Amino acid sequence: MGGKPELLSRMAAGDGHGENSSYFDGWKAYDENPFDLHHNRGGVIQMGLAENQLSLDLIEEWSKNHPEASICTAEGASQFKRIANFQDYHGLPEFRQAMAQFMGQVRGWKATFDPDRVVMSGGATGAQETLAFCLANPGEAFLVPTPYYPGFDRDCCWRSGIKLLPIECHSSNDFRLTKEALVTAYERARSDGIVVKGILITNPSNPLGTTTDRATLAMLATFATEHRVHLICDEIYAGSVFVKPEFVSIAEVIEHDVPGADRDLIHIAYSLSKDFGLPGFRVGIVYSFNDAVVACARKMSSFGLVSSQTQHFLAKMLGDEEFMAMFLRESAARLAARNERFTAGLREVGIGCLRSNAGLFSWMDLRGMLRGEKTAEAELELWRVIVRKVKLNVSPGTSFHCREPGWFRVCHANMDDETMEVALDRIRVFVRQHQRQQAKAQRWAAKGQLHLSLQRHAGIASQYHALSSPMAALLSPRSPLVHAAS
Amino acid sequence: MGGKPELLSRMAAGDGHGENSSYFDGWKAYDENPFDLHHNRGGVIQMGLAENQLSLDLIEEWSKNHPEASICTAEGASQFKRIANFQDYHGLPEFRQAMAQFMGQVRGWKATFDPDRVVMSGGATGAQETLAFCLANPGEAFLVPTPYYPGFDRDCCWRSGIKLLPIECHSSNDFRLTKEALVTAYERARSDGIVVKGILITNPSNPLGTTTDRATLAMLATFATEHRVHLICDEIYAGSVFVKPEFVSIAEVIEHDVPGADRDLIHIAYSLSKDFGLPGFRVGIVYSFNDAVVACARKMSSFGLVSSQTQHFLAKMLGDEEFMAMFLRESAARLAARNERFTAGLREVGIGCLRSNAGLFSWMDLRGMLRGEKTAEAELELWRVIVRKVKLNVSPGTSFHCREPGWFRVCHANMDDETMEVALDRIRVFVRQHQRQQAKAQRWAAKGQLHLSLQRHAGIASQYHALSSPMAALLSPRSPLVHAAS
Repeated sequence: MGGKPELLSRMAAGDGHGENSSYFDGWKAYDENPFDLHHNRGGVIQMGLAENQLSLDLIEEWSKNHPEASICTAEGASQFKRIANFQDYHGLPEFRQAMAQFMGQVRGWKATFDPDRVVMSGGATGAQETLAFCLANPGEAFLVPTPYYPGFDRDCCWRSGIKLLPIECHSSNDFRLTKEALVTAYERARSDGIVVKGILITNPSNPLGTTTDRATLAMLATFATEHRVHLICDEIYAGSVFVKPEFVSIAEVIEHDVPGADRDLIHIAYSLSKDFGLPGFRVGIVYSFNDAVVACARKMSSFGLVSSQTQHFLAKMLGDEEFMAMFLRESAARLAARNERFTAGLREVGIGCLRSNAGLFSWMDLRGMLRGEKTAEAELELWRVIVRKVKLNVSPGTSFHCREPGWFRVCHANMDDETMEVALDRIRVFVRQHQRQQAKAQRWAAKGQLHLSLQRHAGIASQYHALSSPMAALLSPRSPLVHAAS
Repeated sequence: MGGKPELLSRMAAGDGHGENSSYFDGWKAYDENPFDLHHNRGGVIQMGLAENQLSLDLIEEWSKNHPEASICTAEGASQFKRIANFQDYHGLPEFRQAMAQFMGQVRGWKATFDPDRVVMSGGATGAQETLAFCLANPGEAFLVPTPYYPGFDRDCCWRSGIKLLPIECHSSNDFRLTKEALVTAYERARSDGIVVKGILITNPSNPLGTTTDRATLAMLATFATEHRVHLICDEIYAGSVFVKPEFVSIAEVIEHDVPGADRDLIHIAYSLSKDFGLPGFRVGIVYSFNDAVVACARKMSSFGLVSSQTQHFLAKMLGDEEFMAMFLRESAARLAARNERFTAGLREVGIGCLRSNAGLFSWMDLRGMLRGEKTAEAELELWRVIVRKVKLNVSPGTSFHCREPGWFRVCHANMDDETMEVALDRIRVFVRQHQRQQAKAQRWAAKGQLHLSLQRHAGIASQYHALSSPMAALLSPRSPLVHAAS
């Protein structure tokens, strides 16, 4: 057969699609023993999934009140034939119109969107791949500020053959992207002989849960224009900003702040998976200000069109401006309450999170809990304990390409209040136990009882080591930590 | 920006996605002046779209009788949250189960399908691309019998960078694929230094409307096994076989006829777009007997998942075995009646079609109407007249890579009976006019009035030439042919 195809081989080697990272490994632990509030309170709680379950009841209610929005109801069946048969890759005109309107609404009407630039793709996953195919050749690169969503390695690179190169950001300034860091990454790529074709940012950031400020966006638009590189803004959490500062879209910045920006270089990825909690509906959008990219992406959308059944339903819902306003308001309030409750709960035991204003997760600082040298290995060791013993599937910072060990992304919008409280209790029990053991160790050290300390410390050490193998963790009896927490 | 990305440039040049072919040009004429039975009887009738509108009423009716199948009804809303939030790329278990069952049913229960091998893709378009990415590296090739679906150039090649090489088939044996033609194509590729990774067939064939016989399928499975090349069978018209001989799936052949075939080399693409007339729903399926391909394709399905709203609906419908049996029976009867009526209508004026037993189209033989040398240019000249003057958007054989000029694919399942009769009338009027002019020319020639004949012939010639430019055709007054027919 002329050798194994490269993509099959790369998949088998776990390269290029993030599949062998701890980000995904944690899911296995969850899949094997999922928590259930009523039937398996000792199971693993899924905190690795950036999913929004907080406001789906509003959509369900709207749906029940609008049977005409579905082609599968007596009220909507007259549209069945037209919709089922619809296959134009431009999409239903009413869907593009409603989506463009909603994209303006979710950005506070501070930028306008042209329905003719709305291109469908299979989720944000497909949107990122489409842009990679459109903007770069194999071997060329996008720069991405760290930490960043690990799925980008699959979405942008796997089949297109492009590279992602990190722009290193640090906790010292709350992981904000600076021009210095950008220039450093850009120059390093050039000196390595790599053609940089774009800068890819997520705004609001996943995993940080922070929005990019206006000045930084203006800097990026200016840099892109000066250096002839594309700027791709993943804004899939635009509708999940729950406190000030308000969200600023790149669309607003090039309309009002940097009128000299070259619009041909600016592209937005959007989706309804996060803001609405509708990942199953596979709605991804490429919105480009570049005509050639719109045309090319639209041809590519043949590979990832949104089901016309779903387009039809969403056209009606997104077009209901009043409902959308209520939804965005209520969703933000619920996200704010959830975030406040979770971070306040952690503060009780001295655990901090990066101050955030958006998203479905917290960026939790466990640097103080790393054993020994603050290395990626120490982070993974702590992560294994959290997954296998504390039974929370959180995601370690290393899987987001974060260079500073000890940060964890913890999703908390994909569960009900009660489950979130169980999760919070588990973390607090774990942290307190850790604190008690540290305090003891310090007292012993202070008393000069060093040899004793080492013996006691072995209690924690053995716990850590028993879990370095996932199989060992699986075979171990149910964790007392979990019992205490549930 | 380091040069324009290759895919953008290739698109602009019209390469690799069939966009500059006459197959698509005809759509423009249709889009500019679409026929409407009540409001625009002089418009262009769309006969270039292999779409099945004949039995959608049955699905609409089923849908109305099963409100619980939709998450947007009072009866189904309890499932809304679960379904909307569902994002596992394995798909809903009930969807895969129902799809596997239906794939057996549509193949007369002569082969069984394993739900765990059912992989979703965005339509058959996505299924073909997924298989290309999984099975071959850029520059490697699949062999494809001609004539073949022009979309394959986009689906298989555009983004994956693989090549399609023709296996030339001929009208002398009704375009059947022979081992000799296959070996010739295979050897030619090898002598050109191209690595052949697979053979891609459509069974039933688009554009021929014929099924592949068991012996040919056995030959292909044996050849694939002996030469270590993959065999990809596009079976998206499996449920659109309307008369005998019955459809034989490659799944049946490797189960019963060629037990020694290497199953790791066998892959099926399926879809619900054609058999059900649901192209808007974007349901494509990769079914591979190769575990590594299933695993790789499933990862890739992230780019083209089926909307969970649609999966949920279809799981219920496909799982209704009794309804499915009725649907397949009734759909076949309607397709048979439509095909019989259309081909009989053409026979009245002496126009033949390849004898077919499947599909949504006829492969019409207009070789006798080509002017002068029987060339591809003569075919395109005739095609321009048919599109611009007769106002039927049919597809010329050249766009299907057919090497024998004069064949046209004419779709007739995407319209109601009355529209089909209008189309048929237009063809008959056109053919009769052509026949009268030919007869006159022959009489004059027989009388030795050659110079007069040439003058009169100029009447047809000028009509042809006026249409060689699409703009000229657009600006010309409404065709008398159309008036006569409508």
